[in-house]
Amino acid sequence: MIEQIKNRRSIRRYLDIPVEDNKIIQLLGSARLAPSGDNTQPWHFIIVKSEEIRQKLTEVSNKQKWMLSAPVFIVCVADIRSRVANNIELSLNETSPQLELKQIIRDTSIAIEHIVLEANNLGLGTCWVAWFTQEEIRPILNIPSDKYVVCILTLGYASESPKDRPRKKIEEIIHRESW
Amino acid sequence: MIEQIKNRRSIRRYLDIPVEDNKIIQLLGSARLAPSGDNTQPWHFIIVKSEEIRQKLTEVSNKQKWMLSAPVFIVCVADIRSRVANNIELSLNETSPQLELKQIIRDTSIAIEHIVLEANNLGLGTCWVAWFTQEEIRPILNIPSDKYVVCILTLGYASESPKDRPRKKIEEIIHRESW
Repeated sequence: MIEQIKNRRSIRRYLDIPVEDNKIIQLLGSARLAPSGDNTQPWHFIIVKSEEIRQKLTEVSNKQKWMLSAPVFIVCVADIRSRVANNIELSLNETSPQLELKQIIRDTSIAIEHIVLEANNLGLGTCWVAWFTQEEIRPILNIPSDKYVVCILTLGYASESPKDRPRKKIEEIIHRESW
Repeated sequence: MIEQIKNRRSIRRYLDIPVEDNKIIQLLGSARLAPSGDNTQPWHFIIVKSEEIRQKLTEVSNKQKWMLSAPVFIVCVADIRSRVANNIELSLNETSPQLELKQIIRDTSIAIEHIVLEANNLGLGTCWVAWFTQEEIRPILNIPSDKYVVCILTLGYASESPKDRPRKKIEEIIHRESW
């Protein structure tokens, strides 16, 4: 099995060491290569190092204080304009019904996981955080209301080596020929 | 960069060679290790080898005839019951508004991309296909209406080596500190 899939853990404690900018760019380079429906590439990534902004993002993430130990947050945003024309007014939130929103969440999630695995490859730790609302997170980063924040990815050098969390047995998730 | 991220291509022509069952199980083992919100693991995978069923699935996928050259389809299903109680009646489709549907699409997409990358690692090709409706695809596989089919992943040994499709420049997808 690919080593980075096998060894990946969600990291919630980070060392007080900055992440090299060329490594961050390499991570986003791996996201850029993700597949997407009709090659629409709906993903955007906001690199946040500012402590003030990271504090605000932590605040709206149900005050999960561990987040702040990560020196970098990558805010991962899906852009519905890759599929829906500009003249159609849209304000997206957690209960928006559009098919296109589901499609861009799917495609952006693929790209985010490329970052997660590539970070592991570079000796970096990450954690997916999605415990916030669009309404609260968007103003912090001036994100227009027709974009949807899929997650904050915390990023840094790990200061913990957590065990893997339990998983369902493979027989519980596999079906053959029919549900 | 992780070789499998760099070399992955969407494969739409396959050799007429079966895929070893132990390899399929290994692929799903890598999906099983994906991260998910609150470790809910909403993913299910239906392994389809039957030609008759693959024909029906191709039919509802806008008759994309290339699909049939793949000896295996993995139908990737997200289960909202990982987050919503059984006594709440739900029939999901492309315009359902539930937050939980967005969450399970996100998490199942992560797991699917693990399969895609691990397949590349084992010398196998894949292609994400999501050009169908829930209404048409679910009856073919007896999938209950409270599940959501995220994609059909075609799987097999590639008989083509397509070039990578063009990507946006990295500057177009990166922002710093703010949108």
